[in-house]
This record gives sequence, structure tokens and C-alpha cells, in this order.
Amino acid sequence: MSDTSRELRVGQVGYAFMGAAHSQAWRTAPSFFDLPLKPRLTALCGRDESAAGVVAERFGWESVETDWRALIERDDIDLIDICTPGSTHVEIAVAALRAGKHVMCEKPLANTVEEAEEMAAAAAEAAAEGVFAMVGFTYRRTPALSYARQLVREGRLGTIHHVRCQYLQDWLVDPDSPLTWRLDKSLAGSGALGDIGAHVVDAAQFVTGASITSVSGVLQTFVDSRPVAGEHATLGGSGSASAERGPVTVDDAAAFTARFDNGALGVFEATRFATGRKNAMRIEVSGSDGALAFDFEEMNILRFYDATEPAETAGFRRIVVTEASHPYVDAWWPAGHGLGYEHGFTHQVVDIVRAIAAGEQPTPSFADGLAVQRVLAAVEASSEDDSRQQKVPHDAVTVRAGAPAAREGEAS
Amino acid sequence: MSDTSRELRVGQVGYAFMGAAHSQAWRTAPSFFDLPLKPRLTALCGRDESAAGVVAERFGWESVETDWRALIERDDIDLIDICTPGSTHVEIAVAALRAGKHVMCEKPLANTVEEAEEMAAAAAEAAAEGVFAMVGFTYRRTPALSYARQLVREGRLGTIHHVRCQYLQDWLVDPDSPLTWRLDKSLAGSGALGDIGAHVVDAAQFVTGASITSVSGVLQTFVDSRPVAGEHATLGGSGSASAERGPVTVDDAAAFTARFDNGALGVFEATRFATGRKNAMRIEVSGSDGALAFDFEEMNILRFYDATEPAETAGFRRIVVTEASHPYVDAWWPAGHGLGYEHGFTHQVVDIVRAIAAGEQPTPSFADGLAVQRVLAAVEASSEDDSRQQKVPHDAVTVRAGAPAAREGEAS
Amino acid sequence: MSDTSRELRVGQVGYAFMGAAHSQAWRTAPSFFDLPLKPRLTALCGRDESAAGVVAERFGWESVETDWRALIERDDIDLIDICTPGSTHVEIAVAALRAGKHVMCEKPLANTVEEAEEMAAAAAEAAAEGVFAMVGFTYRRTPALSYARQLVREGRLGTIHHVRCQYLQDWLVDPDSPLTWRLDKSLAGSGALGDIGAHVVDAAQFVTGASITSVSGVLQTFVDSRPVAGEHATLGGSGSASAERGPVTVDDAAAFTARFDNGALGVFEATRFATGRKNAMRIEVSGSDGALAFDFEEMNILRFYDATEPAETAGFRRIVVTEASHPYVDAWWPAGHGLGYEHGFTHQVVDIVRAIAAGEQPTPSFADGLAVQRVLAAVEASSEDDSRQQKVPHDAVTVRAGAPAAREGEAS
Amino acid sequence: MSDTSRELRVGQVGYAFMGAAHSQAWRTAPSFFDLPLKPRLTALCGRDESAAGVVAERFGWESVETDWRALIERDDIDLIDICTPGSTHVEIAVAALRAGKHVMCEKPLANTVEEAEEMAAAAAEAAAEGVFAMVGFTYRRTPALSYARQLVREGRLGTIHHVRCQYLQDWLVDPDSPLTWRLDKSLAGSGALGDIGAHVVDAAQFVTGASITSVSGVLQTFVDSRPVAGEHATLGGSGSASAERGPVTVDDAAAFTARFDNGALGVFEATRFATGRKNAMRIEVSGSDGALAFDFEEMNILRFYDATEPAETAGFRRIVVTEASHPYVDAWWPAGHGLGYEHGFTHQVVDIVRAIAAGEQPTPSFADGLAVQRVLAAVEASSEDDSRQQKVPHDAVTVRAGAPAAREGEAS
Repeated sequence: MSDTSRELRVGQVGYAFMGAAHSQAWRTAPSFFDLPLKPRLTALCGRDESAAGVVAERFGWESVETDWRALIERDDIDLIDICTPGSTHVEIAVAALRAGKHVMCEKPLANTVEEAEEMAAAAAEAAAEGVFAMVGFTYRRTPALSYARQLVREGRLGTIHHVRCQYLQDWLVDPDSPLTWRLDKSLAGSGALGDIGAHVVDAAQFVTGASITSVSGVLQTFVDSRPVAGEHATLGGSGSASAERGPVTVDDAAAFTARFDNGALGVFEATRFATGRKNAMRIEVSGSDGALAFDFEEMNILRFYDATEPAETAGFRRIVVTEASHPYVDAWWPAGHGLGYEHGFTHQVVDIVRAIAAGEQPTPSFADGLAVQRVLAAVEASSEDDSRQQKVPHDAVTVRAGAPAAREGEAS
Repeated sequence: MSDTSRELRVGQVGYAFMGAAHSQAWRTAPSFFDLPLKPRLTALCGRDESAAGVVAERFGWESVETDWRALIERDDIDLIDICTPGSTHVEIAVAALRAGKHVMCEKPLANTVEEAEEMAAAAAEAAAEGVFAMVGFTYRRTPALSYARQLVREGRLGTIHHVRCQYLQDWLVDPDSPLTWRLDKSLAGSGALGDIGAHVVDAAQFVTGASITSVSGVLQTFVDSRPVAGEHATLGGSGSASAERGPVTVDDAAAFTARFDNGALGVFEATRFATGRKNAMRIEVSGSDGALAFDFEEMNILRFYDATEPAETAGFRRIVVTEASHPYVDAWWPAGHGLGYEHGFTHQVVDIVRAIAAGEQPTPSFADGLAVQRVLAAVEASSEDDSRQQKVPHDAVTVRAGAPAAREGEAS
Repeated sequence: MSDTSRELRVGQVGYAFMGAAHSQAWRTAPSFFDLPLKPRLTALCGRDESAAGVVAERFGWESVETDWRALIERDDIDLIDICTPGSTHVEIAVAALRAGKHVMCEKPLANTVEEAEEMAAAAAEAAAEGVFAMVGFTYRRTPALSYARQLVREGRLGTIHHVRCQYLQDWLVDPDSPLTWRLDKSLAGSGALGDIGAHVVDAAQFVTGASITSVSGVLQTFVDSRPVAGEHATLGGSGSASAERGPVTVDDAAAFTARFDNGALGVFEATRFATGRKNAMRIEVSGSDGALAFDFEEMNILRFYDATEPAETAGFRRIVVTEASHPYVDAWWPAGHGLGYEHGFTHQVVDIVRAIAAGEQPTPSFADGLAVQRVLAAVEASSEDDSRQQKVPHDAVTVRAGAPAAREGEAS
Repeated sequence: MSDTSRELRVGQVGYAFMGAAHSQAWRTAPSFFDLPLKPRLTALCGRDESAAGVVAERFGWESVETDWRALIERDDIDLIDICTPGSTHVEIAVAALRAGKHVMCEKPLANTVEEAEEMAAAAAEAAAEGVFAMVGFTYRRTPALSYARQLVREGRLGTIHHVRCQYLQDWLVDPDSPLTWRLDKSLAGSGALGDIGAHVVDAAQFVTGASITSVSGVLQTFVDSRPVAGEHATLGGSGSASAERGPVTVDDAAAFTARFDNGALGVFEATRFATGRKNAMRIEVSGSDGALAFDFEEMNILRFYDATEPAETAGFRRIVVTEASHPYVDAWWPAGHGLGYEHGFTHQVVDIVRAIAAGEQPTPSFADGLAVQRVLAAVEASSEDDSRQQKVPHDAVTVRAGAPAAREGEAS
């Protein structure tokens, strides 16, 4: 009875941390923003029907699926939102696109460049049919970072010389914190590099509008074994669960220098061992006419230095990015009433809904996600080759007809 | 068919700025918190049916009412949430309580002490019947301030000597910003004092657990006339709308010193003329063993100084109040992923729902709201009496049987 | 043999904390600044010849005196620098001026308004003869505050609405910290009010260029007795020195509101009980076109908000006041190489030397010091009169011929 | 007549920026600190006798020399203080040490590793005779950094995982700022790397007590030609001075990753193109039990995070490093009265004087300076080899008897 031509019916795969953030976003976006299509929380998909059902009830999902393939086959779904670990992205995303569903996919796009290339190729094919894909580098939607991009685009920084990025967390400092799937290379792909380094690589390229062309890096694992978490330890049956340790197969920290195609020099660090830093996702950009600095621990603040001012009145400005004229803000509260972490997800929904309704490619595209993946891969390659500089390839993906079929066989 | 005994059916009066914040809170609270009663967005009430309908549709309110009396009469409503201007609070709240509805009422509790006393009396009567009222000093629910309260309660500050509070905004600096209802004493009661000063008075008493016993203050209006806003100007028919100015009848700024019943000395300032400060709601408490400092412009941060440390390692700690062990936080995101302004409203819903389910008085009660009102009134009295110190009365309200009837006649 | 016409021969009274700061300043100023007269450290005066001799040797004072009267009588002295407690200022300063010596006098100018008036009168008389007096509100010479004054003077703040000042220290929080002369009203005049409150009163009037016309205040003593310090306790001979406590006769904290002659509203707080704040001398000024904020704990930084900027790029600028174009800075180090506390004393020497050489009145004059004294006295009077507003008199001092003679008899 | 056995008679070479800082330090140290030997400003040496004479007069140097060889030959000199450009250090320092004079030498120790090795060898020889040498990494003497070292040494950080250092300046951002000697490789050795990168390399090794074992780096010159400064341009005689540009032969910026012998991972950046950063010499150290952060733009502040605290009360503490119990501070002012840039030089004098009097090796020694030089050289080598990791050699210098003779012939 409802006019589904004005709806965007969503099927979401995954219901944990990211799943909750996405659920809240789908529901909240139309309450605060005028959207051309109204998102409808049609189906939530998770292997554990009961657990998925609880989350569905909490956020108002209309139905539950336990198999993502069944979800994709439903003809009352317009968009598949993928909130599962990176190792599953390629299969779900490619299948969804081939089924004519729009796709929103959490970052990192995939666990390998090959997977990311396959996804980007599928997205390019689908886009030609008006079916769009987007990868979830949500920090772009923080108003302060979105405004940073705008200032660069307006030329307020002039020629950019430096990009310094850090993503500092500290949740692994304790050597006895448990071994989770995020520390297993087969599931997570990489450690700090892919999980949080990916965010600052994307942010750096987004804010500057420039691309990283080469990198030189090091990866480091400070604690190479950790206690196997409860469930697994129990399987061992020893009873002395706390004594059992498993290997950490990903990096605890990554550091690299980078060159950009606009001549800028980048310095990046991503770590889960920065004691006292909880979520310090930081970027500072220095240009000939100005500079910007951002730290997600103060997510409503952007520091801006205007070098065209006389020296005596120049200084980094603490801009409280809550004015109605700042990106996304007019939908929310009066000036000074800050937003929080999950607002970025709501803005992401707003942007993809508007792009789809307009028949335009939303950003960041899978090609953008692939570009990040290539940077991460080059950092890994450099780390394995004595930190020697590695070029980051920038060739377009080619649509490979046979690839998807080959993949099918691998599906679990 | 649904088990309404496990629901809390809400009727909300008002749908503007505060109305949106409350709507989002009612809907969001059960998605992130385990609640003993599930809030149901039963009815939204506003004089303009069409406008209220739009908001109802956006947030999922099941029905719309245009007369708050009709809303109160509905037997499928358990709680009335009042988001209208202060001049209307007393009438709606008292009627709702007498009709056996729980009440959540936006701050300030009322525009006068007399009204507030009437409301507190009605709340006391209702509480005896298990019907509860709460006033919306939402900042208490900011995790950082809630944790500040906890630290004081745990004795980490020792004997408190100083309370310094500021609530700084700047939206009236432009002398040509329009004359709104907030600048009209008959509707708003007072200016900066009641609108934002009320928040820091409540926060000061909440965090310290102490009561203000006397004040000495000044009120100031820097710009005493402002352009009449579009609609009204048009009514004047002159065509030269911008030339027409009306009188500002409230304070632009308030400043006062205060004494607390624990011997502490307070300094308060509330203003809409603090250029560059957007929503700097600040409180610093200095005690014999420690100190706390908070600024809402960095709402996820609490500064804490532990004076029992050796001098050389002591320093104000920048606590990022996003740990699972901090108040309210475990329902949300991992450490370092900050919350925003509206989360306080969600927490407020959580607290009132839990209190009602437990049959306990939620806080801040109407008596707490009255206490704030008495402080504000004493500041006004002092300002009118050459800043002479005014005692703040603390006598309990008496239940006055006749009062409500008298008020009925005034209803519009 | 040296050309004393190009020298300014200094005799300094006092050699403790302030004495060291002044000694270093007299010696350092000509090394970094081009001065029309070269200060010569001719004589250091202190009652304890041996102790004074040690300090004289350390800083290069050429001789030592033990009686300030003898110092004043020396004809090889051009300027008397008074670094003794406030109770002694009037006698020394008036005598020096009458003897034709220029005078630099530490703040506060005196312990009472009457003494300050006598000093201002003496200074006015002397100025007519080309003999000048200055009071040491050294914070004016912090480059950041000097630059703040310049920005206000250039109109960058527009009409000033708010002045909020704090001077927060915490060295008395421990109730067992000893009873010093600073806690004895007969020697110190007042407590936090006169010692540190005086600084922010002067800074407020200096930066804004406006005068305080009335105040309403409270004084508070949190700990009314303290252990008598070693020496005195020993005199008691009891042996249980720690048990002996004496009365604190001054305020631990002062808070007051103020009105300025330009219509601005001021809020002031001075305390020695602000746990964790070591020397937080703060001033924030809000105007129609901009705002300034300063905290001495970051003495090389000035925050400036330019409200004429578009809202989206406006923000408090963190100006590092170390550019060559900032006041005093070009004599020192490259940008970013900050100055320290004692540089203000060096700048003070620079300013008085240049004024004397030019035959001009240096600032702040004794009249400026008297103006501060009158504000402090009004705060005390208000505190004693239930915080009622007190007018601050601004009448010029009259030269009272008989007064000095009367005072002579009191000299000890 | 004076007891020269209690003096340390200083001959200083160089009188510009560093010369003034050192002069002030020699004079000031004995005024505030109890020193076993009193520094005597015996002779200042500079090629331009007149200019040197002016500075000598300003700071109280007793005599002037124009040839450093003559200075070294004087038998009334105990210590040679070298404040000249890096290219001259080796010759002067080695000659002075061989002449039995103690040496204080500005950083960087030399322009090449070979020179530094020669100097370290000469210092080792001299030390055997009780003649000592020290290199001027003054930032070690900033109380906050000295205290940081102390906290690490006390184990407050536990095992160190990360060292992140930045030295950010912006004085070369303008492409038309003039070509100075600092941009000429033959005189300056390197650019940002050696000038300011050297400081953070030393600070990192000093604070952590660990050594860098390998590096991978990039150097970058953003502006490769600049206007020849006035004097030189005039020599060209063209009249269109501003059009003449000369080549920049050093790096504008350097970035590198580093491994330490304690397993820590380092990230370093030094640049003169960090718009808006004036002298942001920053170091953050993350350990298993705590973390430290410092920025010279707030030189009196040290941030310290104690990870042994419960998560909910832990936070970076803003320690105002001005307590009497902090290094060097008790000689100065009360808590909260900050120090400035040049105090580090005064503390350096204090430390070398005390070490010499005690017959002990002062630190940082020439061997420490050599260690820094080797890191810088490895960064350069890595930059030239595609950023490949370079090992930093740590072998002791050998005393090479013939070397000095060989050098003699090169002397100008």
C-alpha cells in the first residue's frame, strides 16, 4: 500500500557494533533530514536468528534473515548494507551488485587488493546500470572533516606541503588482553594498519583531494601471543584457560611516510598501543596559505590557521563546527551543541540516499576504497622489503567477466 | 494486543527544538538500553495540527492531538512530556499530575517561584499516589557531569571551597538580531538567567550535593530594543519592517556570587553576549583534596585534579569520559567514540523510565526545580536591591488544596 | 669617570623574591634592549647586611645599605626601587620622591586608600618637577597582555560587554600550611584580594582602557587559624611548635561583580584555594566585534576571536605571542621561543627607563595604583555591607602640604 | 687578586643569536644557583671586533678576541664555548681540547659523522686528562623534559612501545623568504634534519634512555631556489636584486621511522614548512604503564598518563612543571610562574659547571652528539637509497693520533 517508489528498502547484514550504528542511522536520517527516498528497515540478516531478532526488535527492522543469499534474492530489498568482517565483503557485495541491489559496505573495503579490485570492477559494472556502491569511511561525514575538505577545495590552504596523520588507540597495551578475531590475519586482513590506518589514509586523500603515490613503512607486533578468549579456551578443555595463548598474526602498529601526487609529504602512524589515547584519529595539513588540524577526540572542533593574516594576529583558530553553515549541521541543534560518533553514520545514510535518488555515484566509491587498499598493501610490501619505497598503483580496474564465477565456488 | 503493562505510553506536548530532542530520545532509549518499560510514542500534541503531524511522521508518533487537555484525558497515555515555553508549564503539569499521569517537564520548571511552588506541591501530592514528576535539567545526564557528581560523592574532592560556573553564549551580540519570545519577560520569565543560568545553578547543586543559601547579583540588558521579527512586523503593515523595534524585557546577562550550605563560595555568570562562546556551559569545583572542571563545548571530557598526589606528578587530568565504567557509556560505543548533545535526553528517558518502573522518585524532582527557581528569584531580587545579599528560602512546599481550582480559571 | 648623565643609578630596597626579580631585570634590560640610559646597580638596601650582601654579590650590586633613609640621602642614586611589603611603601616612596628620586614601587601601591592617596599626591607633586613614579603591575608587560591592550585600542573588539577575570592559586588549601606575614592584615593589608586580585583589577582596566565604577563583593576566609611558623613558635618556647596556631586576619578568597564606565559588566575572583591552579591569572574580554582570552599559565599565548569573520571560519585563535611584531618580542628570540615570568620585570625596566629619559610619566602611575586600591577598598566595604554595591570614587588626589610632615613622626 | 681556583673563566666564540643566549646564561647561572665555580665572562671572540665589542659590553665580557686560536692560547681561559656554525665546530673544539680547555659546543656537534667522530675521539682523550666536553642539546634542560626523563627512569612508563617526535616550524613557507647560510649545505650540513631534527633525536634518546638502531627516511626540499639576500645580490650588481635566486641545497623537511634498542617504534618529522607552528618541538612516549607528551610551545607543561590508574579516573595530566620539586625549578619562582626559552641555557651552564667541579663527564657528551649525528647520517643515507632501512652504527670512536695533524693543514 505504501508508495515504495519513494522508499529505499534496506537489508542489512550484521548486527554487532557496526550493525547498531548503521541501524540507528537508517532510522534517524529521515527524522532530521529531508530525504528524497525514505529508508525502510526491511530486513536484518544474521546467522544467529535469535540474536538478530533481538536487534531487529530494538531498532525496528521488519524482518530477519539468517542467510545473506536469501536476503539478496528478496525483491523487496533495494540496498544491501554490509556490516560484517572484511573477509566476507567481496562475496556479499559482488553478489548484491549483480542482483541489482545498491550496496553500502563497511570499511576496509576488503582484506586484499585482489578482492578490492574485484569489488571495484563489480561496482563499475553495476554503476553503468544505475546500481551504486559506496564504502563506509564514515569519518568523512564528521562535519569538521567535511568542512576541512571544503576549506582545501576553496583554496584556503594554498599548495599543500605536509599531511601528518595519526590514529592512536590503546586497547592492546595490556599483554593479557584477549586474542580476538581482529588479531587473526585470516579474518581481519591486517591489524592497526587496516582497521584504523585505513581511516586516516582515506581521510588524508579526502581532505587534500590528492592521492598517495608511494610509501615506505614499518609494521610492528609488540605482543605476539595473547590469551585465547573464553569460548576457544574451553574447547581446549584444559581448565587452565588463562594459560592458553594463541598467536597474534597482525600488526599492533604501523608507521609510514608517503608521497602524494601534489608533491606533499605524508607521515602516518596507526597503533593500538598509544597508551592514554582512546580514539585519537588526527590529521594535520600544512599548506602555503594555511593549515588545518583535527583530532577525533574533540570531534566538533576544527583548527584552522590562515597564513594570509598578518603574523601578529594569526593563530590556529578553534572553530566549533556547529554552525548552521557547516556541513550537515543545520539539521541538528543550535551552535555549540555538539554531535557524537554515530552522527557520521546518519550523514552517510543521507549522502547515499540522495546520490541514489539523483542517479549519481555516491562517494567514497569502491574505487576509492580500492585506492586505500592499495596504499595499505604497499605499506605491507614496504615493511617486508626493509622499508623500501613502494609505488602505489593507480590503474583503473578492468571488468573481469570470469572472476565472479570463479569466486562462487569458494563461497561458504 | 501488545502488553501495555510493559509499556510507558507517552504523550508529548511541543514539537520544536526541544520536541525533536525528546522525540529522538523516547525512540532511541530502548534501542540502546535495557529498560523495564518500553516507551511508546503514543501521541504528539501541538496547536498546529499540520506541523505537528509532520514531526509525528518523522519520529513515529502514533497520533496527533491539538489540545493538551484532550491529551491528558486520554486513558492510553501514561506520561506527559512537556516541551513548551515556561509560561505554560504550571497549568499542563498540574493538570497532568492530577489526572494521574507521570510528568517530564522541560526546564526551567516555571517562570515564577509561585508557579514552581504550585507544581512542586502537586508533584508531592502525586508522588504519594505513585505518580511521578521530573524536571529536565538534561546536563546532569552528560556522562562527564554525572561522573563528576560521582567523584564528589566518593569524597575525591574533600571539603569543597569553590564553585565557579559560567554559561556563555553569544547569539545576541548582534544588536539587530530579532526580538524573539525568549526576550519577552511575559513568556520567558527571564533572559540568560532563567534560560541558561538555571542550568548551571542546577549543575552546581547537583555536582556538589550542596545547596545555595544566599546570592548577590546583577542583571544587565545591553541592547534594550531589537527588530520585531518578520511576522509581527508585517502585521504592523508599515513595509519598513526592519525599522520597527520592540523592547527587550529580560536580561542579556546575569552575574552573581553565592554561598552554599557547605561553606563553599560560588561565582556564576550567564550571558548571551560572550562573543565566540557558543555553548560554554562550564563548572569548576575546588576542594581540599581535588578539583573538577568541565566545559560543555568539550562535553566528553572531564578535568580532574587529585591533590592527594605528590605535587610533582599532580595535574588536571583530561579524562575522556567514554569508558564502559563511566555513567551511561556502556550502552554506546567503544572508548574514545564520543557522545553528542542529544544523548543527555536519551539518558533522561532511561532514568525516568527506570524510576517509574521501580516506583521511585526520579531526579531532579519538581522540588529540585523549585530550588533552582528560588535561586533565580533571589538573584533577581538582589539585582533590584543594589546587589544586596538575598537569602534563598528552603522551606518545603505545602500542599494547597485550593490552588489548583483557582488556577483553572486562568487557563486559556 | 663614567658618564653618569647616560646612566640611571638604582638603589633597590628589598632583596627577597621580588628583589631577585627586580635585580635580574635591572641587569638584563640593557643587554637585550637599546636604552637611552644605562641602569647601574648602585646599591641594594636591606636590614640584614649579610643577607643583602649575598644577593648584592650575586647580581652585581655595587654597594649595600641597611637603612633606606641613608639610601635615599645618597646623591649617587637616581631611582629608588621599592620591593618591600606593602605596609612600608608609603613612607619610603614619599620620602624618595621628596628627595628628588624617581620611584618604582611594587604593587599593591599601599595597604590602604589613604596611604595610596598620599603617595599619588606626592607623585603628582614630584612629576611637576620631572621626577617620576611608577607602580609595578608587571603583568601589563607580558607581551600577550600588552598586545591584548593594543587590539582593544585598535578597535578589534568593538564595544566591550564583558570582562571576566580570575586569579587562581592553591597554596593555602592545606589547612596546616604556615601562618606567614601575607596572612596578617597589619602587614599585608588584605589577602587574596590585595595580593592577586589587585593584578586582575589592574589588568582589566589596562586591557579595556575602562574604569570600574562600582562593585559588589564577598570575601571569605576558609581557614581562620594556621600553625605559627618555626621562628615565632620557637619564641613561644613550648617545644610543641606545630600545635600553636595563630589567627588568619585576611581573606583567602574574594569574588565580586563590577560595572565599568563603558557599560561593561565584570566578574572577578581571586583565591588561594583553587586546587590545582598554580598561577592562573586569567582575563577574558567580550566585545561586539571580538573577544580576547588569556591565562598566565600559558603566558605566551593570547586567544583572539574576530567576530567580523564569517561564522563558519571564526574561532578563538591561539596566537603565539612571540612574533617580532608583538610588543617587546623583537629584543628576544625567534618566533615560538617563549618568554618566562621574569621577562615582565625586564620590560618594566625598559619602559620606566625610556619614560624617564623622555621626561614623560611612566605607566602605571601612582594614580593608576590608587585607582586599583580604591576598587579593592570598595570590594571590602561591599563585603562588610551585605555585598551591597559600592561606588568606586574617581576624584583626583589633592596635594596635601601638611601630610608628609605628619607622617615623618610615625617613621620607625 | 680574585681566587681563580674558584672561578671558571670562559672564552666564548660567536656572539649572534646563540651567542646572546649563552652570554646571558653564563651571567645568570651564578645569580640563581649555588655553583662550586663562578663563571667569569673573560673573553668574547668574533671576527668583527666592533660588533663583538658591542655584545661584550652588553653582557659584561671583560675582553674581546678576533681570532679563536688566540683565544685558545690564552692561559686565563678555562673553557671554550663554541656558538659558531656547525662547519667550524671540529676545528675549534679539537684545538681547544688539545689545549686543555673544557669545551661546550653548540649543536649539531658537527656537519658530518667524520667530523663528529674526530671530536668524540678528542673528547675521549681529553676526558682522560680531566678536561671535559659537552654538546648543547639545551632542550634537555627544559624542566618538563628533564622531569620526563626522570619519570621514565623511575619506571612510570613501563616498557616503552612508541616514540613520536615532531619539530615543526614554518619560517620557510614563503617561497620568497631569502637564501640564508642555513640553506647552504656546505655551511649548514643539512636543513631541517640537522638543525631541528637533531634536537628531537637527542630528546628521544635522552627521555627514553634508549638508542635508535635503524631508520628509514625521506628528505624533501619544497622550494629549490630562493632570493639571494641583500648583500650578495648587491655584489651581483644587477640592481634587480629581488630577481636573483640561488639554489637551496638542504632539505626543507625530513621524516623517518626508527627502531630503538628497547624495541620501541619511533616516528619523526622535522620541517620548516609546518604553517602556523612556530617552534612545536614535540615528543610523545607511550609505554605499558604510562605515557608522556610535551610540546615546546607550552614549555612549562608536561602531560603524563598513568595507566596503572583505574580507567575511569585515568587521563593525561597537565602537569605545570614549576614545583620546587621539579628539576631546576627551586632556584627560580613560585609554582605557576613559568620559565622561558633561555632558561635551558642557564641550566646547561649549571650542569657543566657542577660536572667540571666534580671532575665528572657532563652530559650530553660528544659521544652523545656523535650518536645523534649518526642517526642523521643514516636518515640521509636511507633517503638516498629509496628509504631503505639503514642501521645506525654504535661502535666506540677510536682515538686516532694522526687525525688532528691532518686537519691542521685545512685550517683557514
